[in-house]
Amino acid sequence: MTIWKATACAHPNIAFIKYWGNTDDQLRLPVSGSISMNLDGLLTRTTVEFRDDQASDTALLGGKQLDAGAALDRITRHLDYARQLAGTTMRASVNSDSNFPTGAGIASSASAFAALSLAAAAALKLQLSEPQLSAYARLGSGSASRSVPGGFVEWYPAQTHEASFAETFAPVDYWELTDIVAIVSKAHKSTGSTEGHSIAATSPLQSARVATAPERLARCKQAILNRDFETFADVVELDSNVMHSVMMTGNPSLFYWQSTTLALMEAVRDLRRQGIAVCYTIDAGPNIHCICAPGAASKVAEYVAQFPGVLEFKQAGAGRAAYLEQ
Amino acid sequence: MTIWKATACAHPNIAFIKYWGNTDDQLRLPVSGSISMNLDGLLTRTTVEFRDDQASDTALLGGKQLDAGAALDRITRHLDYARQLAGTTMRASVNSDSNFPTGAGIASSASAFAALSLAAAAALKLQLSEPQLSAYARLGSGSASRSVPGGFVEWYPAQTHEASFAETFAPVDYWELTDIVAIVSKAHKSTGSTEGHSIAATSPLQSARVATAPERLARCKQAILNRDFETFADVVELDSNVMHSVMMTGNPSLFYWQSTTLALMEAVRDLRRQGIAVCYTIDAGPNIHCICAPGAASKVAEYVAQFPGVLEFKQAGAGRAAYLEQ
Repeated sequence: MTIWKATACAHPNIAFIKYWGNTDDQLRLPVSGSISMNLDGLLTRTTVEFRDDQASDTALLGGKQLDAGAALDRITRHLDYARQLAGTTMRASVNSDSNFPTGAGIASSASAFAALSLAAAAALKLQLSEPQLSAYARLGSGSASRSVPGGFVEWYPAQTHEASFAETFAPVDYWELTDIVAIVSKAHKSTGSTEGHSIAATSPLQSARVATAPERLARCKQAILNRDFETFADVVELDSNVMHSVMMTGNPSLFYWQSTTLALMEAVRDLRRQGIAVCYTIDAGPNIHCICAPGAASKVAEYVAQFPGVLEFKQAGAGRAAYLEQ
Repeated sequence: MTIWKATACAHPNIAFIKYWGNTDDQLRLPVSGSISMNLDGLLTRTTVEFRDDQASDTALLGGKQLDAGAALDRITRHLDYARQLAGTTMRASVNSDSNFPTGAGIASSASAFAALSLAAAAALKLQLSEPQLSAYARLGSGSASRSVPGGFVEWYPAQTHEASFAETFAPVDYWELTDIVAIVSKAHKSTGSTEGHSIAATSPLQSARVATAPERLARCKQAILNRDFETFADVVELDSNVMHSVMMTGNPSLFYWQSTTLALMEAVRDLRRQGIAVCYTIDAGPNIHCICAPGAASKVAEYVAQFPGVLEFKQAGAGRAAYLEQ
């Protein structure tokens, strides 16, 4: 009996310049580039075990066996890519755990598909470069491409599978930002990101978002490289607001903000006016990421912890690249 | 002693296709056309009394004497236009009252400047056509142009003062819509519309809003003419969301929604999914206008009255044109 097995870990990431909409929904080639930071402390750990005595792929997610259906099909399709490269048809058992709520605006599919890609590639002894691994992860979930490299990362839009990958542009210890993630709901979102991306083009505002995204990306990247929090805060909040504008004006309209989300966004802007170096950004869910400059995190954490409607919070600094467990 | 005096009444209006941004801030020439309905029941009543024994203009608003300053200057500048046409320099006493909260997202400046324009023109015995009166009202507050004609109204964007006025395209009794205005705050908004319009162009989304506005306007107008509530609801909510997207992404960003606003928006969408013919639209303030198809108003009023965070509600049908009190 043959068993090929590997375990990989990956962090979710928080996008400072957002990904919303594809030029190719199948290949998940994005309409615009994005920038993110991996989140240490938050982790998905995934073991993939290819076995020649198994009839079909199975997946245990958070200790719960996944039934046959769309989610399992998505994993099978993702593994097929690695199987094809390796020239094998062996089915796999996947066992994955995350230490944070999934499906609620922390990019759980990002860390999940980054870890799955690395574990599958390692188990099958594929020799993939980091860009190749990032592009592979992208096929499972677009933002997973950004959870493969470490630290501060840029994901390139491109017309081909090979060219659309993410790369580190500043290492993990370059700037000591902290993400205080205020959890206001643990419910699974009703419209997942995959469906959301396909709706993006129906917004009358999406083409303007895409046309102006490169300027915001360049400004954000430079602000990070300059460790210039003021510029960073302005462009990060703007880009988040722009993405949610597109979401709210699509057909159907997607409202991810909840009352607490909106209230905390306003509170964060107030804190900044009071001199506390913090800004917000929000993914496709109701939770608020409060990005803190060095030195501001403890004050912000204290504030967020007592904010009405916040269930709990997670705290994370910049995280390293996806890695194999030995 | 000479006294020329007249009293006029005007309704505020609720825009179904919004006005946000000017091509000329001085003349308040809008970047795009808009559509609205006057709101009966809500009323501003204004008396203007020109006197040759008075040294400067005075204004009593809601029983409170207006001190010298920007608000009084705005009234003086507005009266100057009528004085110039009449060839007089007489100063005026203005006495104006509204039966609804001002400065909180019901277009109080619309009814105020419509009533002021009509009263001033009548007192000075100017022979103005309705389009001329609408254009005059526009100089004081853009949306005031729409409170001059009755019923369902379209305001034309144009490059000249004379050509940018509002006109009725369906009479007051054409379609029995009801506006249930949920008041969630009576506070004066921190950024007024005049300042807001000048910020509009700083949003990366404004040009897309303007480019796509004529299509929404045409769709909305046709939906009203067809009494097609489903199409109407979709385009009205979309246009409101598009305007607030521009507001939230400008520099500075303007957030008019409050927690209750967001929660009631979601509730209104839910009501519609349950088969109750209602949609929302929101002006530059936190209050929510719930627009009800014929037959839906009593259910919606009942629902809104008990909604957490709603202080009170106003109810209005389509209103007539601005009129003189005899």
